[in-house]
Amino acid sequence: MANKHVVVLGAGFVGLHAVRELAREPGVQVTLVDRNNYHLFQPLLYQVATAGLEAPQIAFPVRAFLRRHKNARFLLGSAEGVDPQAKILWVEGRPVAYDYLIVGTGTRTNDFGLPGVARYGYGLKDLDDAMKIRDRILSACEEAVRTPDPARRKALLTFVVVGGGPTGVELAGALGEVRRHVVSRDYPDLDLSELRVILVENSHRLLETFAPSSAQYAQRFLEKLGVELMLGERVVEVSPDAVRLQSGLTLPSFTVVWSAGVTGQALPGLTATKGNRIATTPELYVPDHPSIYVAGDLNYLEYRDGRPHPQVAPTAMQQGALAARNILRELYGQEKRPFQYKEKGNMATLGRSHAIAEIGNLKMRGFLAWGAWLAVHLYYLIGFRNRMMVLSNWAYSYFTYDYAVRIMHNRHSFPAPLEPVEEPVQL
Amino acid sequence: MANKHVVVLGAGFVGLHAVRELAREPGVQVTLVDRNNYHLFQPLLYQVATAGLEAPQIAFPVRAFLRRHKNARFLLGSAEGVDPQAKILWVEGRPVAYDYLIVGTGTRTNDFGLPGVARYGYGLKDLDDAMKIRDRILSACEEAVRTPDPARRKALLTFVVVGGGPTGVELAGALGEVRRHVVSRDYPDLDLSELRVILVENSHRLLETFAPSSAQYAQRFLEKLGVELMLGERVVEVSPDAVRLQSGLTLPSFTVVWSAGVTGQALPGLTATKGNRIATTPELYVPDHPSIYVAGDLNYLEYRDGRPHPQVAPTAMQQGALAARNILRELYGQEKRPFQYKEKGNMATLGRSHAIAEIGNLKMRGFLAWGAWLAVHLYYLIGFRNRMMVLSNWAYSYFTYDYAVRIMHNRHSFPAPLEPVEEPVQL
Repeated sequence: MANKHVVVLGAGFVGLHAVRELAREPGVQVTLVDRNNYHLFQPLLYQVATAGLEAPQIAFPVRAFLRRHKNARFLLGSAEGVDPQAKILWVEGRPVAYDYLIVGTGTRTNDFGLPGVARYGYGLKDLDDAMKIRDRILSACEEAVRTPDPARRKALLTFVVVGGGPTGVELAGALGEVRRHVVSRDYPDLDLSELRVILVENSHRLLETFAPSSAQYAQRFLEKLGVELMLGERVVEVSPDAVRLQSGLTLPSFTVVWSAGVTGQALPGLTATKGNRIATTPELYVPDHPSIYVAGDLNYLEYRDGRPHPQVAPTAMQQGALAARNILRELYGQEKRPFQYKEKGNMATLGRSHAIAEIGNLKMRGFLAWGAWLAVHLYYLIGFRNRMMVLSNWAYSYFTYDYAVRIMHNRHSFPAPLEPVEEPVQL
Repeated sequence: MANKHVVVLGAGFVGLHAVRELAREPGVQVTLVDRNNYHLFQPLLYQVATAGLEAPQIAFPVRAFLRRHKNARFLLGSAEGVDPQAKILWVEGRPVAYDYLIVGTGTRTNDFGLPGVARYGYGLKDLDDAMKIRDRILSACEEAVRTPDPARRKALLTFVVVGGGPTGVELAGALGEVRRHVVSRDYPDLDLSELRVILVENSHRLLETFAPSSAQYAQRFLEKLGVELMLGERVVEVSPDAVRLQSGLTLPSFTVVWSAGVTGQALPGLTATKGNRIATTPELYVPDHPSIYVAGDLNYLEYRDGRPHPQVAPTAMQQGALAARNILRELYGQEKRPFQYKEKGNMATLGRSHAIAEIGNLKMRGFLAWGAWLAVHLYYLIGFRNRMMVLSNWAYSYFTYDYAVRIMHNRHSFPAPLEPVEEPVQL
């Protein structure tokens, strides 16, 4: 039997877990395709955005991962579309022929078509996003230090996070910590009371996927940290210097982070369904094209009460692995298996050392929950580097409160004041 | 006596050593100005450029440094010029009044006006430079993997370094190591014999500031590492896809790193002399403007055989400290002291664990010299973070040969082939 070529699109949780299953299988050649040369550990992206960790600490080069998988190669590039009949994936104008294709491209930020969000808001889905947010926060503080006009200074120091799900809550909590522990010590020239962290959420409570008691705990925690919660508020527009809410309230701010929703990054050539996700059979292949599998955030498969699987890391890992195994089963003439989602629980961090965690009926909160969060996330690290090394790497940055990782790579500029400032700089 | 305001321009070795002297002096207020918010440890820039270290490992946030210096403030910004009569430093359109000014802005890459160097070549003077070079090297390898045309593939894999001084030698050596230890393991798809590292030097030997025996050792080391040396060759032009030498030889290459010279970053308002440096008295102030001091690479002061001080880190540190102390002496009515250069020796690394070092009459080479180099550079770290932490931080990246820090931040594109490639990708 000639080698079968399995192309895996996306080096996220889906791609890596799929490749791991396919590794060392005789008769299988794998090509992993991604537009970046690293696997991004997304759960900690908010830490990079708030200068708690550096980009390299959560990005792992794909080629290092593939060293141990001798039957796998890496191709850097963006996929433009797929031709299911010809069994060709188009990557930057070049055809890549496959016998099987696993698509795990995930989601991107969803602006819901609201005016100004894509243009003036900041998403948080990749490293570039995170570094832009971080550079912007640092730039805003440096600009505020020399801004004599109080209104402009306050707008510079107002950071708005839209979306009260886990991402928004984690981000707002981290910003609250930055305000309390970093800005206070690094910027003696700033009046902390002028620095606002505002979390805007459409519904009347945070964290709708969590139990009410966990959400309540999170809410109180954020409030104690000085985060302002605006619940039951909907954003109608983002402009260069403000966020306008449905209630009529306008928040002057130069930094709006949009974590209110995601949409699937569907591959042209395949038909998308709700949420721009791609529907599959329970065995995870596309009904009309059984050599194409879709897994992870992009996959649409109803499993309970007509609801699709949650777009979380455990889903991606389990589906990536199953897609690969089902391909192997087909090659060996065995019957494919349907996806059975194993709930791994729900977690969200609060600030630097607290969290909420729900696993089955068990609900944890506080430092214990945070410990569980840490253990689970370390486990998720697919063994790129010694876990102890990564842990100590994170620990140094994390526990020293040092936040030493505050290097500004690119300076952000802000809309200039209407009247040019000519006053001498007073620090 | 009212507070005296000392403005220190540049957060390099000069600025930090000056601030350290001025700290805690009653009656002195300090403003440190830099266009970046971090102190860059330049001796290790070539490591970032060759993916041996990550940017945050050699960049130290200024505000963290200033925490312990309560009489100092930081202003992020580019200086546009100085008005010595009015005693004003102009920073991005805003006046900063000073009683004393210490200018330590260093140098920038000098292209000697050669065609194409500034436009197509890559300097190595700041973090941005280093990350561009690294991203380019990684992008070139990824592009080469899918390039069927041998001529284009070889040009992608030819890396030219211009300048046989310490910077060029260190860079070429690090590239040689990358080729031998990293590319060989990460890119099984590439034919290593196609990857060339070429070091071009105008004179007939490398490292003119070192003794001939040290330079000979370095030369042999590089040759054994597979670096091609082109001595007695002068670059006449750099184009998007080649480097042309005076002898007529043309090297097809998409990546040319220019480390052949530097020129002073003189401040408008002050008169520059040779090398665009600013001449001072032995006490380090500008003759016509005794409240302005210049220190470090930018300073021009002859000390031996009519030659100016070498533009190296020890000069910058010693002069930065002296400038600050002379200002204090003036405030206290004491006599200023002239600069007495204490030679700290000359060092250059060769690959990952060898070096040459000359201290006085002592000449070291090999691993011992490398140990000395490491000890000296650790000492130079002005105590931002626990030196042991930085050491273990570097050690992990450095000694594991893991080069795990190979994340590509921005993808580089290369001039497209004349005929579009339509062949299927073969890895």
